[in-house]
Amino acid sequence: MTTVKIALLGFGTVAQGTFNLLQTNAAIIKDRTSVDIDIAKIFVRNPDKYSNITLPVATKYVTDIKDIIEDDSIQIVVELMGGTTFAKDCVEEALKAKKNVVTANKDLLAESGPYLLELASKNGVDLRFEASVLGGIPIIRTLYESLGGNHITELIGIMNGTTNFILSKMTDEGLSYQDVLKEAQELGYAEADPTADVEGLDAARKLAILASISFNRRIFFDDVSVEGITKIDTEDIAFGKEFGYNIKLLGIAKESNKGLSLNVYPAFVPVTHPLASVRGSYNAIYVKGNGIDDAMFYGRGAGSLPTGSSVVSDIMEIAKNISNGSTGQLKSFYYDQKNIYAPGKIQSSYYIRLAVDNKTGVLAKISAKLAEQKISVLSIVQRNMDPEMAVLAIVTSKCPRSYILNLIDSFNSLRSVQSVNSVIRIMED
Amino acid sequence: MTTVKIALLGFGTVAQGTFNLLQTNAAIIKDRTSVDIDIAKIFVRNPDKYSNITLPVATKYVTDIKDIIEDDSIQIVVELMGGTTFAKDCVEEALKAKKNVVTANKDLLAESGPYLLELASKNGVDLRFEASVLGGIPIIRTLYESLGGNHITELIGIMNGTTNFILSKMTDEGLSYQDVLKEAQELGYAEADPTADVEGLDAARKLAILASISFNRRIFFDDVSVEGITKIDTEDIAFGKEFGYNIKLLGIAKESNKGLSLNVYPAFVPVTHPLASVRGSYNAIYVKGNGIDDAMFYGRGAGSLPTGSSVVSDIMEIAKNISNGSTGQLKSFYYDQKNIYAPGKIQSSYYIRLAVDNKTGVLAKISAKLAEQKISVLSIVQRNMDPEMAVLAIVTSKCPRSYILNLIDSFNSLRSVQSVNSVIRIMED
Repeated sequence: MTTVKIALLGFGTVAQGTFNLLQTNAAIIKDRTSVDIDIAKIFVRNPDKYSNITLPVATKYVTDIKDIIEDDSIQIVVELMGGTTFAKDCVEEALKAKKNVVTANKDLLAESGPYLLELASKNGVDLRFEASVLGGIPIIRTLYESLGGNHITELIGIMNGTTNFILSKMTDEGLSYQDVLKEAQELGYAEADPTADVEGLDAARKLAILASISFNRRIFFDDVSVEGITKIDTEDIAFGKEFGYNIKLLGIAKESNKGLSLNVYPAFVPVTHPLASVRGSYNAIYVKGNGIDDAMFYGRGAGSLPTGSSVVSDIMEIAKNISNGSTGQLKSFYYDQKNIYAPGKIQSSYYIRLAVDNKTGVLAKISAKLAEQKISVLSIVQRNMDPEMAVLAIVTSKCPRSYILNLIDSFNSLRSVQSVNSVIRIMED
Repeated sequence: MTTVKIALLGFGTVAQGTFNLLQTNAAIIKDRTSVDIDIAKIFVRNPDKYSNITLPVATKYVTDIKDIIEDDSIQIVVELMGGTTFAKDCVEEALKAKKNVVTANKDLLAESGPYLLELASKNGVDLRFEASVLGGIPIIRTLYESLGGNHITELIGIMNGTTNFILSKMTDEGLSYQDVLKEAQELGYAEADPTADVEGLDAARKLAILASISFNRRIFFDDVSVEGITKIDTEDIAFGKEFGYNIKLLGIAKESNKGLSLNVYPAFVPVTHPLASVRGSYNAIYVKGNGIDDAMFYGRGAGSLPTGSSVVSDIMEIAKNISNGSTGQLKSFYYDQKNIYAPGKIQSSYYIRLAVDNKTGVLAKISAKLAEQKISVLSIVQRNMDPEMAVLAIVTSKCPRSYILNLIDSFNSLRSVQSVNSVIRIMED
């Protein structure tokens, strides 16, 4: 039986998950690959930090990366350090030394994916990165292999566990955004500085990578229009429930004859749609293609073992390729050029919440403005809050965003409109 | 660029879906594989049947299978005829002639999978069958590649579109089983003889194949305990809704220290579980593993293009392997021996519906019987139907099936129990 020696770079959460699975499931992995996978070296800055972990006898800590790059017996380097400077150097050096690489590094992929894929191919080795996006969901291989025969037309994801946890808890318990964020931070589900999550930046980075693979063009973070969840109000969630919607932070890549649109924003999802039931810290990717019609892939987007599981699957594939003499055959995904078009051109239904004067004739004025903008109404709920103020929640039919922006301008020009409080898109069923 | 010539055997629904995708998505497929895939021949009994379909100039109908088996230029044979006699001969001959094979034939796989996989490997060619189970859901490759590093502990699926359509419609519209079955038959969703679907046989066949791959032992249809949906009553569905459950026909393979249990039965699924929102003719597979924790794969289980999409993905993988010189490397999945244990040993919660005399003291007698069998009650609802009869719906805590069978015996021995109408398992959340 072939033995393949591997080295881990870094020994944090994901690396330990990978290490644990390779140990615990060693027999299964050997049966399924016909390869003995042997963790020869682990690169860390300070081995003393890990004195509580028992390594197999043959596994050594090294503190100099050269001890891995220059070790010809090591055939797979597993980069789990993160960052785009030192990690990039390591991956580059490893590929040039004709070592296969597995990485879980989303930022590195986003920044240098095409260059590194080409470098791997030039050196006859594999570069795999299943764990770089949505750790425990095997979405990358699914997109480029299992769905490879499809013209993918749309990809919609719940790609960020922190925001889905927050929105689910706001929905289930009627708590405010601020209260739930605080709890999420205490539980370690949200960072002390939650910006990257709650403003949708993390989701946008993941969308860029998944859309690159789905639509075969290079898509950058800056190509994605982003809107976070910080303005979502418990009142909107409650109205949404009444209308049959759950609120979700969605990443949406959609192709039309105008080009490709790329957006992250909170949206109301019809409760009958499978994405509506993705709760808590779970993630899911919903894909439409001209073959499969539609499909959804659901699971843990992060975590030590789930992400480790994806890393291990990449190691196993490469180990089989080494044993078959067929490494270095992965194609780059980036070859097509498509226009990216602005979100203004996408039509959708909208939910709008207004505070208006609580007197007769106001609804008529609002309705006149809607008619003026040629926007029809699917549902409208009026709730009288006090003798001075009523709340109107309106669900419109599909229209371009520019119509909605004009509508809001015209609402604001009405003296009887006290404020336009919320504008939330509704996902198509 | 490499050109790979393929032949289709059969030109029914799935073959036409495959043909259509290979034509429509030719440019995408070529970009993604760097291979020109060329449909050289299509084997049919009677070409005149397909005179409405325009073939590419280079594609020919043949009516003698030898014209494919003996044609050395054909490298992939795509068996889409079904059946286990002539189809088996063709696949066998193709493999012996060192042709790679793609098949969507569930029955052939179930009957001769291990033999054919070994034959492929011996001849240095690939045998792939992604489309053989749940057409549009890429579950087979996911189980053996993407989740390959996991010890899978449980697989639960909604694997039959017909029964899910029927149960969904009974749930949404409050219609009886008989009425919905009739409608499904009129719409072509159910066969004139619906036995294989509604009695759970089709689901059991799929479970046997997916469990074989997940648990690495050969599992046969006969290993699966099967119960269909014909006794499900609208009244049970309504009580289920009250308790927070949706009814689904589940295929469940579950490993414990006692061995592996394999069952198909209708069960109440908590509405918060992702399987509960799999509606209509959609299918889904929910998997637990010691790495991924849990994940779900959702989509179309059948249909011309969805199934064709899986066939095409297999053709693409083999085409890449041919171009890389790495065919014939797929391992057989069957190597482990595990005990299969009877459903009686599995604990679950149960829903029981009884008709009882509408008089005081009956509930006390029922409760005494429950206590006697050491079964606790999670919920109980009593509904008085008329002066003579009341309905009791009981949800028990988890207990072995043998306890429930004893309980039902003891209920039947009570004079105040008119009938035990339903016993339905409840899936763990």
